[in-house]
Amino acid sequence: MKVQKLNIINNNKLSQIMRRSYERNNMISTPVKQILENVRQRGDDILITKYRKRYGKSFKLEVNKNDTKTAYSNISPEFIKSLKQAKDNITKVCLTEKQSTSMKICNVEDGIRVWREWRAIEKVGLYIPGGKAVYPSSVLMTGIPAIIAGCSEIVLCTPPDNSGNIPSPTLIAADSLGIKKIFKVGGAEAIGAMAFGTETIPNVYKIFGAGNSYVTEAKLQVFGTVNIDMPAGPSEVFIIADDTANPAYIAADLLADGEHGEDSACVLLTTSRVVANKTITEINNQLKHLSTAERVRESLRRYGLIAIVDSLDEAIAFSNEYAPEHLEIMTRNPNQVLQKITNAGSVFLGSWTTKSSGDYATGANHVLPTGGMAKMFPSLSIESFGRMMQVQKVSSKKSLAKIRKTIETFGETENLPAHKNATSIRFKEGGDIYES
Amino acid sequence: MKVQKLNIINNNKLSQIMRRSYERNNMISTPVKQILENVRQRGDDILITKYRKRYGKSFKLEVNKNDTKTAYSNISPEFIKSLKQAKDNITKVCLTEKQSTSMKICNVEDGIRVWREWRAIEKVGLYIPGGKAVYPSSVLMTGIPAIIAGCSEIVLCTPPDNSGNIPSPTLIAADSLGIKKIFKVGGAEAIGAMAFGTETIPNVYKIFGAGNSYVTEAKLQVFGTVNIDMPAGPSEVFIIADDTANPAYIAADLLADGEHGEDSACVLLTTSRVVANKTITEINNQLKHLSTAERVRESLRRYGLIAIVDSLDEAIAFSNEYAPEHLEIMTRNPNQVLQKITNAGSVFLGSWTTKSSGDYATGANHVLPTGGMAKMFPSLSIESFGRMMQVQKVSSKKSLAKIRKTIETFGETENLPAHKNATSIRFKEGGDIYES
Repeated sequence: MKVQKLNIINNNKLSQIMRRSYERNNMISTPVKQILENVRQRGDDILITKYRKRYGKSFKLEVNKNDTKTAYSNISPEFIKSLKQAKDNITKVCLTEKQSTSMKICNVEDGIRVWREWRAIEKVGLYIPGGKAVYPSSVLMTGIPAIIAGCSEIVLCTPPDNSGNIPSPTLIAADSLGIKKIFKVGGAEAIGAMAFGTETIPNVYKIFGAGNSYVTEAKLQVFGTVNIDMPAGPSEVFIIADDTANPAYIAADLLADGEHGEDSACVLLTTSRVVANKTITEINNQLKHLSTAERVRESLRRYGLIAIVDSLDEAIAFSNEYAPEHLEIMTRNPNQVLQKITNAGSVFLGSWTTKSSGDYATGANHVLPTGGMAKMFPSLSIESFGRMMQVQKVSSKKSLAKIRKTIETFGETENLPAHKNATSIRFKEGGDIYES
Repeated sequence: MKVQKLNIINNNKLSQIMRRSYERNNMISTPVKQILENVRQRGDDILITKYRKRYGKSFKLEVNKNDTKTAYSNISPEFIKSLKQAKDNITKVCLTEKQSTSMKICNVEDGIRVWREWRAIEKVGLYIPGGKAVYPSSVLMTGIPAIIAGCSEIVLCTPPDNSGNIPSPTLIAADSLGIKKIFKVGGAEAIGAMAFGTETIPNVYKIFGAGNSYVTEAKLQVFGTVNIDMPAGPSEVFIIADDTANPAYIAADLLADGEHGEDSACVLLTTSRVVANKTITEINNQLKHLSTAERVRESLRRYGLIAIVDSLDEAIAFSNEYAPEHLEIMTRNPNQVLQKITNAGSVFLGSWTTKSSGDYATGANHVLPTGGMAKMFPSLSIESFGRMMQVQKVSSKKSLAKIRKTIETFGETENLPAHKNATSIRFKEGGDIYES
């Protein structure tokens, strides 16, 4: 990697950095469509057949008590302790978020009130990546807000590992939350199963969680049948730094993102050429000891950028257009920069707020919009698991009279006479005999 | 129509009522895809060519000051007055909603804080149906929350009428809100233009508003490139009534929904056979004088249901599964029923809260999920036009130390060593020299 000034980098390169890997993959659109159609028509059969070929005839889709018991026997006390702290912190944040869902009544006119009441989405589906990956943290990030929101049915799907089981940490994370409906199924099949329902797997109303490109494409295709949280792609970190930032920390945080995969994106914009150069030295040093170095190197090559800016405002403008999933601000006054940030999934202020602290332990959610989607999609929170149901009450004929003329005029203007009549009829003679 | 008991109606009939007209239309999927691709590749050209053929060479996509001036000369003082009251009331409700977006800080541990700050979506697109329809109210319902949310760029698209102009009430509603970027383009073309941008029409990050089946299909297809509010289909009203309800009012409100179109859905569930029978008599009487009667009759035939239930709970259970766009509760204690309602777009309590009052004048929003989508999508509100950006701060090395072990354990468990290292490195000797 070499350090460049942002304003002299050519447009092709910048465009690749901006677009990064998020791009709906047309190549997989047709196979995913086929998978979803198969699941819709054949249900369990199509899921089980695939897995029994791989894991033998005794393979079952649903996790049972024995699986959970085995998982506990595989796990260290350290993990249980860490799980508890992560759970506690996420819970605290969710409880604070829940305050936003309290009822607020608007007295529009005398006797006319409009308000909203919180209703959790009844049935939700959580997709947790698996296969080679082990992501107990993602179980917490999707499961805890679902529970605190008040969702009554929670379905969790995750692909089995090579032995046909769910990795122990993932299963224990789910069990520790009291999630009962856990299924060993992954990929577009899992998304189809939760969208349409099968004999074993209940259908849900909204599907949450990140996955590979098949999972994302499947989520986009079932959108409209169900709702989804967001189309999530490869991970990305964007760091804005001035001369006070620590290059070793910057390098470590860039690497922590790059190790997610070759399509991950890592950007550093700094006002300090010294910091930029030292960061590159640090990256090279730290990579020497990192088992995931190969993935990091490839991600840096594809979507990595380390560049010098003339001012923090230049960095902020680029960041707002980039709309990063994770934004770290390592400057003298991170709060000042924050106020100008318009688009970001999750923001990390100052040198001690490591990206991995937010991935696991600050209590913030790590299911975040990627690929520029932070311009338009929110991060996961309890609001994603419910909605404010709108209610209105016009208390009396007298109150209705106050808006009668407006309703009638709009009904007329919009050529909807029955709209007008539905209000007018309440004022007709004889109407009062039914008055309630 | 005939009155039946809900529990003896056959499953085919009930299934048609439940599914109603919402169903993604596969027939139009391919033509819509083609339209979107054309707009993406050819931009303005494809839009203008179509309209110039129809309206002559002088047709322009963008509305200018003269268009607005002409519109004002066409409009009655009554409409201006009604527009003002509707605007004022919607504004009041939006300002109450905005209280939910205030910052709330969670002190997770000493020195570790997580909070969220409101950020409006910067660029939003409003789709307003047109052609034969005139919907100034929809301009208010999408435009006012966008403005109060703080969206900095608002783009409005609506199809021109037969003369190649935007209907005066629609244009005046937009002008009264100060919306500057108004374009005469409708259908899937408009959705494509706002999703991809053309030479004249700016691209946006989220698209709002209902339209015909082409518009809905286009919104679903561009989802993922942009965000959308919801997939909205034909209008529907669901009334739960006991023996205190006024059949004339029930009939009037059912008709007010049915007149939207042949695919609209109207359902009455009542504990009173008398109310059911009288409602049918009232429907027939009121239809005699209604210019939109033909549409109403067809919608009643297709998706209409008037049925007797043994208890309000039976009605509530059916309604929750139906998840109606508009739910009217006309019972002795509407509040009691409300507490059991889990899925509805907008609820109307008591006999004076006519459906059309909420369409136009109570200040509640009328852009609502249809076709059962109320199970998973929220009604439009200012929250739809922004999101709470997540921020976290770990203040010091001491604070980071409190969650260090959890971060490291999760990093190890998830086979992400650079995640672990990004925190560990902050505790290495020499790390402090850079401390900020």
